[in-house]
Amino acid sequence: MSVLKICTKSFAASLGRQSERSLKKIYRISSSFRTFSTEGKLEYDLVVIGGGSGGLACAKEAVAQGARVAVLDYVQPSPRSTKWGLGGTCVNVGCIPKKLMHHASLLGEAIEDARSFGWRIPGNAEIDWLAMRDAVQDHIKSVNWVTRVSLRDNKIEYVNGRGHLADANTVVATLHNKKEVLLKTKNVVVAVGARPKYSTAIGAQELGISSDDIFSLEKPPGKTLVVGGGYIGLECAGFLNGFGYPSTVMLRSVPLRGFDQQMASMVVNEMEGRGVNFICKCVPESLSKTLDGRILVKWNTTPGASGGSGQGEDVFDTVLFAVGRKAVTDSLALDKAGVETHRETGKIFTTNEQTNVPNIFAVGDVLHRKPELTPVAVQAGRLLARRMFGNDKTLMDYDNVATTVFTPLEYGFVGLSEEESEKRHGPENLEVYHAFYKPTEFSIPQKDMSNCYIKVICLRKEPRTVLGMHFVGPNAGEVIQGFSAAMKCRITMEQLLDTIGIHPTVAEEFTRLTITKRSGMDPNPQACCS
Amino acid sequence: MSVLKICTKSFAASLGRQSERSLKKIYRISSSFRTFSTEGKLEYDLVVIGGGSGGLACAKEAVAQGARVAVLDYVQPSPRSTKWGLGGTCVNVGCIPKKLMHHASLLGEAIEDARSFGWRIPGNAEIDWLAMRDAVQDHIKSVNWVTRVSLRDNKIEYVNGRGHLADANTVVATLHNKKEVLLKTKNVVVAVGARPKYSTAIGAQELGISSDDIFSLEKPPGKTLVVGGGYIGLECAGFLNGFGYPSTVMLRSVPLRGFDQQMASMVVNEMEGRGVNFICKCVPESLSKTLDGRILVKWNTTPGASGGSGQGEDVFDTVLFAVGRKAVTDSLALDKAGVETHRETGKIFTTNEQTNVPNIFAVGDVLHRKPELTPVAVQAGRLLARRMFGNDKTLMDYDNVATTVFTPLEYGFVGLSEEESEKRHGPENLEVYHAFYKPTEFSIPQKDMSNCYIKVICLRKEPRTVLGMHFVGPNAGEVIQGFSAAMKCRITMEQLLDTIGIHPTVAEEFTRLTITKRSGMDPNPQACCS
Repeated sequence: MSVLKICTKSFAASLGRQSERSLKKIYRISSSFRTFSTEGKLEYDLVVIGGGSGGLACAKEAVAQGARVAVLDYVQPSPRSTKWGLGGTCVNVGCIPKKLMHHASLLGEAIEDARSFGWRIPGNAEIDWLAMRDAVQDHIKSVNWVTRVSLRDNKIEYVNGRGHLADANTVVATLHNKKEVLLKTKNVVVAVGARPKYSTAIGAQELGISSDDIFSLEKPPGKTLVVGGGYIGLECAGFLNGFGYPSTVMLRSVPLRGFDQQMASMVVNEMEGRGVNFICKCVPESLSKTLDGRILVKWNTTPGASGGSGQGEDVFDTVLFAVGRKAVTDSLALDKAGVETHRETGKIFTTNEQTNVPNIFAVGDVLHRKPELTPVAVQAGRLLARRMFGNDKTLMDYDNVATTVFTPLEYGFVGLSEEESEKRHGPENLEVYHAFYKPTEFSIPQKDMSNCYIKVICLRKEPRTVLGMHFVGPNAGEVIQGFSAAMKCRITMEQLLDTIGIHPTVAEEFTRLTITKRSGMDPNPQACCS
Repeated sequence: MSVLKICTKSFAASLGRQSERSLKKIYRISSSFRTFSTEGKLEYDLVVIGGGSGGLACAKEAVAQGARVAVLDYVQPSPRSTKWGLGGTCVNVGCIPKKLMHHASLLGEAIEDARSFGWRIPGNAEIDWLAMRDAVQDHIKSVNWVTRVSLRDNKIEYVNGRGHLADANTVVATLHNKKEVLLKTKNVVVAVGARPKYSTAIGAQELGISSDDIFSLEKPPGKTLVVGGGYIGLECAGFLNGFGYPSTVMLRSVPLRGFDQQMASMVVNEMEGRGVNFICKCVPESLSKTLDGRILVKWNTTPGASGGSGQGEDVFDTVLFAVGRKAVTDSLALDKAGVETHRETGKIFTTNEQTNVPNIFAVGDVLHRKPELTPVAVQAGRLLARRMFGNDKTLMDYDNVATTVFTPLEYGFVGLSEEESEKRHGPENLEVYHAFYKPTEFSIPQKDMSNCYIKVICLRKEPRTVLGMHFVGPNAGEVIQGFSAAMKCRITMEQLLDTIGIHPTVAEEFTRLTITKRSGMDPNPQACCS
């Protein structure tokens, strides 16, 4: 089956409502996509370097505001030679494949749950890695395709070339055939995102993979070591374990650094309960190939750390590095235009997305000390375009951005961690409500509920404004989104507790909180429905 | 296995964290439950008639405020002789078994989804009705048990007897052995709830069942006719269809009367797409037994209705009536105390839960023109007890109560329907944002997305306060709960659109709305992540 056919088929699936006839029509139109002329110079109001979520959202909004826009997109293959299409990290090697594999893993769990709910299923279920991976990759290709169509529909010039700056008004695109094209532009938005780092262990780059590779891995990952305890590492270990691949996470320091540590420990406890192995306070020292083609990993205690799992070695089929991400700014020649970046991370310093060079802006993961999240990049990009080309003055608000960690039992939160709340307001000025709870659906399959836990931090002084809401449990992303809108409205504890629950849901637990940490009362659940 | 053993086992399962040893301890304590003395008269601050969610919440809060409280609970068997334990409709024949069967039905769907996500599952899955029903009933028994323990812990006198009023300060409890006990009390709370009605069709009561019976039905329901298009009827038809039983819904007028009709049509469309048959604008005329023990149903056009499916007949294995519920006030002798009720519905007129007799109150489904929802009853009961026995003056706010219809694709909403918004504010003063959307997880199994739709109604005038939020899609209950907290804070459209999404979730679609109905633009989804 040709790539085109796959795309069209998946695209049809993804559209659902559209008939095959209208799809064919779209394809005919697509063949008239304007090919970028490699000769001559074009004048733009805006050139966006990076065709990910932030860059594309900015470009589309700029066009809607009447600007003439070009977008450069280019994917540098991973050390493992993995590459992908238009749309950036989120679509290709981030949120989308991650959520799909997380969901696939949950479906495996659902099969077992179904048995206890009375479904008769003959035999055992087993994951077919290649079938699963192909299903995910087909969806990604359909999204690449829709993204491409959307650029055409929005009359955005698309250049499949690697961009760098010649000066503040000149972007150079290096095409696949090595030809260079100059784009003269009034403004530049840098939205090149970030890419996974590898550890300094011997053999890491040669033998390891990263999240750039896992979603299209050519063979089942087998026994896997995930190096790194950030959300990407935990999520990958979570779904691999769910597929039945023995999974180990090696933590340099603490899990989910910067997140609420009590909640992080719930996530880790849950993963351990499901069979994920944790090697704590250790770093890999070397990776080497065994005679049978597997990977021998030797590790040692993190320099300066006390306690932890100590030194050791084991053989794995796959070693995945999730030890942080580095902004892809090295090849941009930002210095040619005088744009300042962070020496170590390569991230760009900005104020309201504007760099130190007035006509050069940046959005997304490339920003210094901003949340690395798709919807943040999208919103920042869109608002920036409105400020640049519309009459709008609305600034991006990076506070109280909700997020969710899709470990099998999910962790969603919005606002401050308990640690950060204490730091900013002092523990004596806080009230922390908390509760364990029992999802109704967990009762029949007798699923572990010991990590189903919620916590709300509020100011102790009236009107008791809520500072942070934390939830570990099923569907955390769906649960926490609405509450993040409530926090946008500066919800108080009274308003939260006055909200009537929807019964039986897990989200209603937020409206049933009565116990504070200060009281020392047992936060274990009481009666079900009264 | 004795009932006690079942209870203890399920209780253990439901508690999860508690060891078997501590359970045994609880059981030993339970054997010392105080038996209600049938001799002598007791003085109470409060007698609650009805041990459902509202009554129990009120009783528990009253005790917490220092009151001496008794609760009467008695279940009149259904015409089909179904009966159940302590806890009222929600626990026994309402929310809890409904949600569990809904979830069981979704798990059947998940098995099929799993295949397309790469899980290899040999053979076909089939529901075992009896196993499923027993799993649900075991959970209910464990909740009955926990509820009983909770009454003991709260030192609430529990009387398993049917209550009626002798006068405004005397409740008579008729025990199972026909003995009568008088309870003298300062205050009475009536929380007897409501029970399903049957249609006037010949044979309805003799051959039909209701939601009182379906969750413990002694045999697989088989081909089922559900009479009634309210949420109970649609939910039952939804999960039965999900289990593979051919299901038909007969509607007298419109589906989900009183709900937003555009959203209701989405729910019906989705159910039809999944194979549920709809007979519109018809009412059953007669039910009669066929020679092989099935049920022949004859129906005709609803009197006065035009259009619709017209008269007809068919044979079913089960006929379930979900044609409304009637308050169980007939046997209470409320007239002895002078309490006024609605002539037809038997519902009680109240102002802030107080009846026309100052020391007699009512909460829950028995109230005239209040939402019939467990969390509403719980909150009203709790606040009432605080006003009666604490120093609190907080009144129950029945506005903006969120709810969810658990048809396979769920419908959740909070606030006003579009119709009600137009009625109250005039269509010219409204802005209606809407969108179809594509749940990421639907793409791979190519699930029908044509009914995944959201709608937000707001005032057109600044600050554009949101009046209603409507969502049809997966996990609607979890999605809408947080937004109901936001509506408690009087969220404006600007605040909603300023909220950053959690990607990829379905809940984030509320933050991505750009298209108004007024604009006439296509509300079909565009790009995925930008």
